[in-house]
Amino acid sequence: MKKRLFIGIDVGGTNMRAALVDDAGSILHVERIATRSSGGAEDTSRRLIDACRSLVARASKGGARVAAVGMGVAGKIDARQGLLIFSPNMPAMRNYPLGVELRDGLGLPVFMENDANVFGLGENWVGSGRNVDNWIGLTLGTGVGGCIFFHSRLWEGDHLGFVAEIGHLVVHPEGPACACGSQGCLETHASATALLKGVENAAQNGALLEGPLFDRWRQQSLNAEMIYQCASAGDETALKLFRRMGWALGLALSNLFTVLGIRHAILGGGVSASWDLFIGPLRDSFTRYTRFLSPEEMVVMKSSLGDNAALLGAARHAMDQVS
Amino acid sequence: MKKRLFIGIDVGGTNMRAALVDDAGSILHVERIATRSSGGAEDTSRRLIDACRSLVARASKGGARVAAVGMGVAGKIDARQGLLIFSPNMPAMRNYPLGVELRDGLGLPVFMENDANVFGLGENWVGSGRNVDNWIGLTLGTGVGGCIFFHSRLWEGDHLGFVAEIGHLVVHPEGPACACGSQGCLETHASATALLKGVENAAQNGALLEGPLFDRWRQQSLNAEMIYQCASAGDETALKLFRRMGWALGLALSNLFTVLGIRHAILGGGVSASWDLFIGPLRDSFTRYTRFLSPEEMVVMKSSLGDNAALLGAARHAMDQVS
Repeated sequence: MKKRLFIGIDVGGTNMRAALVDDAGSILHVERIATRSSGGAEDTSRRLIDACRSLVARASKGGARVAAVGMGVAGKIDARQGLLIFSPNMPAMRNYPLGVELRDGLGLPVFMENDANVFGLGENWVGSGRNVDNWIGLTLGTGVGGCIFFHSRLWEGDHLGFVAEIGHLVVHPEGPACACGSQGCLETHASATALLKGVENAAQNGALLEGPLFDRWRQQSLNAEMIYQCASAGDETALKLFRRMGWALGLALSNLFTVLGIRHAILGGGVSASWDLFIGPLRDSFTRYTRFLSPEEMVVMKSSLGDNAALLGAARHAMDQVS
Repeated sequence: MKKRLFIGIDVGGTNMRAALVDDAGSILHVERIATRSSGGAEDTSRRLIDACRSLVARASKGGARVAAVGMGVAGKIDARQGLLIFSPNMPAMRNYPLGVELRDGLGLPVFMENDANVFGLGENWVGSGRNVDNWIGLTLGTGVGGCIFFHSRLWEGDHLGFVAEIGHLVVHPEGPACACGSQGCLETHASATALLKGVENAAQNGALLEGPLFDRWRQQSLNAEMIYQCASAGDETALKLFRRMGWALGLALSNLFTVLGIRHAILGGGVSASWDLFIGPLRDSFTRYTRFLSPEEMVVMKSSLGDNAALLGAARHAMDQVS
């Protein structure tokens, strides 16, 4: 029998990436597809199918076959129908049957999954979660995604259509309004959106009147990485935002660990690269809000796979579905 | 082979109760022992052993045998050593080898467990949790105890010596100081202690100057039940405390359900008898803080076993250990 390979797809804001992955969790090849094309949803879908066909051909050439395709998507999906209900990364694809088109175009089974869950599946397979039984995963990006692993398996709760929405854990009941309709959610403190809004508020309140952060804000060219750079260079407004992020993450983790009786977390996503600025405040906050675990017992790890976690996790999701 | 029975013991503030329980979850007989005796820990222990011996004799007379003893205890226990490290209900028994004495005195295996967990084991066996896969249990008493059931089994986390400490979930990061050393814990809003402290604060602040609540406070004869009665009679200070309790419970449950992707909770403990005063505010708060579940999808149930949940759960714990 031919060696089985899998395709893992990660849908990002500017690129989709599709990877050929073997059953030991090694990435053999990656294809990139621009997400926002002038050709609209159909065009993007067609180019994704082309990229996957090229991966299928590559597998064939090596004497292997692709057994299934997995796809990690931010936003709301209907995994059974293969429907992308809404993804903030691909607004043009609202209610688009991306999974169905891929399946029909490739003649392969296609499985969609939430992006935070595929991050977790990757880390659990060959990343920081490999040897950990019970852990919490957080992806810090535009928003905050979450996943939970119990006994090294992805926790799915009551199959209610949502799970591990840790970004919407309320850390301050009178905190900032959240896009979800609640207030004081972790996401309003610990995401790129929260950083940008924090600078916006400071500028509006006159607390930010000069310096590179102010200049960028005035030019409307600010992003999370620039806020990180300004904080690293000593900008107090920017530093405060990362301290607040650490405070919120420490409180959220102390709540989760106290309730679940566990002590491991893995942080990924673009904003987790600002680790050096928030990890100290995170530990201080953790220590302040729980007496059940000492800071030494708490284990907070960085994602060890970075961008590849989602590719590997999507492939692993496909592998689990056909095994 | 003789029919197997079990003894379940519930250690309360004024009484210990020991019950003879069959393997279908029926209570056959209950013995009561005063917890606080002038004779000290040894005397209490001896009288508990006597009560259990009488249950063993009763089982024998009926042609059955007692297979094991389970015991639910508030506070810190060393279950392996059979040691009561500290129980607020039995301060005289600090570091007392109650489990060992029972085992030696009866010649039977004895298993200790946290009181909130035995509450859950009872409800899961023959109570409100019987047909529910995944649920959160809360016991509202002097403090707030918690338990978690996943796939109808008691969740034990990483075996860190604590689990499901939901009373110490921080619902307000600038909230009242908690006995645990943190602040704004659920317990500081939703326990008998929180009610008493709330009246105390109101009296100290001059917000409470007349009426039965004030009189009782001045006589230092206040308890949670009286606060409930005053609230039911329309006392605004007392009513506010139950509204705050509901608010905190609603926020805690919305956080837990959002994170775990589940939707069932069971409330027990003496203070849960004030259900009519806090359930409305609980639902309002739940609706305010989560958009992932509608109030109709949320299921919050009363304990259906009341005081017997702990007796049955302690017996069931013993049964699980020897099966």
